[in-house]
Parts: sequence; structure tokens; C-alpha cells
Amino acid sequence: MKVNRQVVLLSRPNGRPAQSDFALRNGDIAEIKDGEILIRNQYFSMEPAIRGWLDPDGNYFPPVAIGDPVRSPTLGVVVSSRHPSYQKGNYVRGLCRWEEYSVLGESTPLLEVIQPKNGLPLSYYVGPLSGSGLSAYIGLHEIGRIKSGETVVISAAAGAVGSIAGQIARLRGCRVIGLVGSDVKARIALEQLRYDAVINYKECGDLSEAVYAACPDGVDVYFDSVGGATLNSMLMTMRPMGRIVACGMISGYNQQKCPPPVYNLWEIVSRQLEMKGFLLPYYVDRIPEAMSNIESWIMSGEITVLENKRLGIENAASLFCDLMSGDTVGKTVLELNQD
Amino acid sequence: MKVNRQVVLLSRPNGRPAQSDFALRNGDIAEIKDGEILIRNQYFSMEPAIRGWLDPDGNYFPPVAIGDPVRSPTLGVVVSSRHPSYQKGNYVRGLCRWEEYSVLGESTPLLEVIQPKNGLPLSYYVGPLSGSGLSAYIGLHEIGRIKSGETVVISAAAGAVGSIAGQIARLRGCRVIGLVGSDVKARIALEQLRYDAVINYKECGDLSEAVYAACPDGVDVYFDSVGGATLNSMLMTMRPMGRIVACGMISGYNQQKCPPPVYNLWEIVSRQLEMKGFLLPYYVDRIPEAMSNIESWIMSGEITVLENKRLGIENAASLFCDLMSGDTVGKTVLELNQD
Repeated sequence: MKVNRQVVLLSRPNGRPAQSDFALRNGDIAEIKDGEILIRNQYFSMEPAIRGWLDPDGNYFPPVAIGDPVRSPTLGVVVSSRHPSYQKGNYVRGLCRWEEYSVLGESTPLLEVIQPKNGLPLSYYVGPLSGSGLSAYIGLHEIGRIKSGETVVISAAAGAVGSIAGQIARLRGCRVIGLVGSDVKARIALEQLRYDAVINYKECGDLSEAVYAACPDGVDVYFDSVGGATLNSMLMTMRPMGRIVACGMISGYNQQKCPPPVYNLWEIVSRQLEMKGFLLPYYVDRIPEAMSNIESWIMSGEITVLENKRLGIENAASLFCDLMSGDTVGKTVLELNQD
Repeated sequence: MKVNRQVVLLSRPNGRPAQSDFALRNGDIAEIKDGEILIRNQYFSMEPAIRGWLDPDGNYFPPVAIGDPVRSPTLGVVVSSRHPSYQKGNYVRGLCRWEEYSVLGESTPLLEVIQPKNGLPLSYYVGPLSGSGLSAYIGLHEIGRIKSGETVVISAAAGAVGSIAGQIARLRGCRVIGLVGSDVKARIALEQLRYDAVINYKECGDLSEAVYAACPDGVDVYFDSVGGATLNSMLMTMRPMGRIVACGMISGYNQQKCPPPVYNLWEIVSRQLEMKGFLLPYYVDRIPEAMSNIESWIMSGEITVLENKRLGIENAASLFCDLMSGDTVGKTVLELNQD
């Protein structure tokens, strides 16, 4: 019987996750039963939400148990099937686990067959053509209600979600300012992602003043993936009736017990702001339009995709730790050997 | 010439305002010019928003200058008029000042003629039939989008806005829980305002747990007039897709430079909450309906009005300081002698 290498959670991270919180293990491949399929995984999507599942309380999904493989959105190919909707050779995506082979069934969250568009790399279907890109699209349109001519600020502007959000806002006719944490990211954001302006929040001094310098009339829509001090500063820059798209709060993910404080919420009253969170499953009817638009924009070159890809399941934990250090650019993806 | 007694700002309050920050002064009564009216003031509305105008930065209105009469929503009667829309004897309301006589004109914010309904006390037109009641109505309907059967929590539940908001939510078929800061207020809220349940946040231990005990299925709409620690706790009690009506943040009004922190904003993402601020002028087209409904409910006895009224302009400053101490119940109104 083939070995099924898995990366399991060894201990719950204290603050920023370390490689020692994880371990590579040889697991089994279970026999599939009626209604199940066996897939060989090809890509793991590395995303900050995983950090929440490593804490004892989880977030909108339950926590990963100690000793269990880490949960992750994955993409794989069907090896054998006892489910009428899935055929051998189909590409399938779902909320699965860090392992080489997975047995999936009706209970697998978000399980679906993927039909990759000709010429688009398969890995894009765990990135810009999956949760990352869809969060950017749904957040900007459904929550941010962006309009041509508006000023939009994107946090984590060179990250998996932000790099797509910034480009979609540009394509919708907005003036787009990106917030990044390094000069390397700033250069990439300006040159490759074509932001109108970029601010390195670690070097700019007072962030509110830097944003006002870049857009003296204030901000219509702030796409927030970070929360904390950045959100606190951005509240001071919003135009009346502005919208804050609450996509994530990564600044707190490594310290769930004591997330960073926000002081300036009075601005929500005095500027009549709307701050709203969203999770993709609630907007499922908007996803086909979003997918089709993002696919077209990538194929036409109007959206540039940046990937931070590494090969081999043995590198899953270190890649995830890199992501949570905040130093990565673009969509972080683990590719599995397919020998 | 008659004397025009005024209460002016002597010094900007440091934290909670003190009587010594204000002074009674004899001013003049200016001659009215074309387009102006002279009114004799009858009621000053005391409200937390005034606190913001005493700080050097103001809030959505500019600050009150040192030496100037304090700004306040007022109600008075026209003594003489050189404006075609206002006749002698008309009751008029506007954002005016703490003084016995005021010269008003086109530049007076929110200036309008009031037609009091038969049998309703005139003072209600600076309280439940003015900003306080309208904020309750507009906030619950336009921002909270309350529906019959939903669970609604009202902060400052025995205050000017909260006491009306709680009763409107009850009349709309909601289950209504009030948050108060003393046992006296708790009794009044239960007996006179007919809340379904009341929590004294100063005595209940962990507020999130107390709210969950009162409504185990969570909260659909939180009407927030206080912000800070209460908002922080309430974020942990919201149902998915819940709405937070950001009406005010009185917990920070006495300490504008360092408002109280809020930590739990991650809940906005994970519970898909919407938090939205509002100011009445933006909803001007909704005000006639709101006025007419609140008037009817008061006349039918379905809404009980609580007032904290004091007589004499010389008591304006002390009454305002009482309001900002958080110990008052109902709408705080200063009535002027009409000898």
C-alpha cells in the first residue's frame, strides 16, 4: 500500500507559528466507500485563515485537532471514484488537508469539480480563481460598492487578496492606493500591479497623513485585510459615507487572545461610515460572474498574477510560517510532487 | 434694552466637564436685519454631542470658541421677524445657543417652524420629537433594519435616545434587552419602558455572558450609543449577519484624545456583521414618517416619555455636567423662565 505523507499539527502556536508546531508523518490511504472519491492533491492554498484553525477556539470553522493534518483549501485530481458526480481525472477543489491523498465525500466543505480554462495554470485555481480572487471581487463589489472615479485604498496590497483587489479596482475606474510593508513590495505593487500610488506603512511616519497626502479628498473605500493599527489610521482618512470592507484582520491572527486595539471608531459615527464583514459562502450566487470576469482579465493580461510557490509537501509548514511572517508577495501556494 | 443672559464656554473641559468650565454672562440682543428673526428661547436640548463641540477639534460641527455661548439644539418662540417664512408667535427649532434671546437666519443650522400636536408638551419637541427620538427611529429602521421577532439590545437604555429606541423596537415586535449603569435605571427600564430584560453592565460581571444568558441565540441588532468596552463585549454576542447601529460613542466623549479601545473587531469579519454610523440630515426624507409615528405612539401611550427637566438658564451648565456624568434618566432638558 502506498504511503500518504501528511503534515500534522504538533502543538498550538504561541503567537507566530513555528516549523516546530508541525510534523511530517506517514499516514494511510483509506479505502473509499460509496459516495466517496480518492484524490491525489496537487496544490495547497496557504492563507492566513488557517492560523485561526490552529487556535483552540478556531474561527468560523472548528479548530484543527492536535495530531490531525492541517486544514487547507486544496486542489487535486480524482484517482478513483464511487460518487456519480466525480470521474477519474477530474480536477476537484475543497476544504481539505495537508496530505498527499485525501478521501473526500459529501461532507467535505466546498467540494467542487474545477474546469480550468485553457492556458491558465492549475495553481491559479487555489489563488486568484479561488478564495483569494473571489474575496477581492465580492468584497469590492458587494461590500465596497466601488464606483468609477472613487478612491480606493487596499491593505496588504501585494498579498494574495490585495494584489487582485487593487487590479480589479483599477479596472473598474477607481484611483487605487496600496499599503505595503516593505520597499520591495512597494516597487512590485507600482510596477507589476500598477497601483496609482503605494505607501510603505512601516516607513511613512503617520499613516493617516501619508494617505491624505496621496489622496487629499479622502478615501471612499478601504479594503481591510489587516485590522489593528492600520485600520485605526485609515478610519481618520475616510470620506463621509465611506465603506470599509472587512475582509480579514491578519494583524491579530498571531495573537488571538489579545488582538490589537482600535481607538478611532467614533469616525464611524461622525463620517457615517459602513464597516461590514463577509464570507464567501453567503455570496455564492455572485461567484460565477466573479470567476468569469477574473479569468478574462487574467487571460487578457489586464490582471497580473504574482505567485509565491514552493515544491514538496515537506515544505508545507515552513511555507505557511513564511506567509504568517508577512514577508511574502502574491499568492502563496504549495505544489506537491506528482512523479 | 433688555439683557440677554448667556452661558459661555470659559475653558475647554479636561475630561468630564465641570461647572467652572462655563460662566453666566449678560449679552446684548442684536437688532434683526432683513431675513432674520428674533426668538425667545424656551428649551435647550442637553445632549452628549455638545461635549464634542467643546474640544478644540469639534466633531461634525466646528468647536465652540472660548467666550462664546455654548451651542445647543433649542426651541423658542418668534418675538419679531423680518423673514417671510417666520411669523411672530411661531415656535421654531434650530441649532442655536445657550442664551435667552437669539437672532436667527438662513445660516442657522436646522432652523424650522414646529407645529406642536395638541396635548403634547412643547419640551418633547427637543427630545423624543427631535434629534433623540428621530435618531432612535432612523437608526433602528434605516441602519438596524429591525424585523419583528428579532432580538435587539439597546445601550444607555434609559437615556434620551435609548428610552425611545427600546420602546420602538418593542412596538415593531422585537425582543428588547436594555443595558443600563445602575439598579435605579434598571427598575425604570423594566417598569416604565417595558424592556423584556435589563442588564446592569456595572454589576453583571462579564457583559457578553450576561447578554448570552438573556438571549442564548444571540443578538440581531445592537443599538450603540456608548462604544468602548460595551461595544467590545457586544461584538461577542452578535448573530451572523447582525447589524450594529453606531449612533454615538459617549464612553469616549470625555476623553477625545484617547478614546477607549475596542479589540474584538475580528467578529465583524467572522460573523459578517455590519456596523454603520448615521447623522440625521442625511435621512431628511425619512423624518416626516418618523415624526408622525412617534407622535402617535406618545399620544396613544404606547411610548412613555421620561424627562430630566430643570428650570432657569443659570442651571444650564450644571445640568449639562450631570448629563455627562451618566447618572441621568430620560431626556435632559433645560427650561427657561418665561416670566
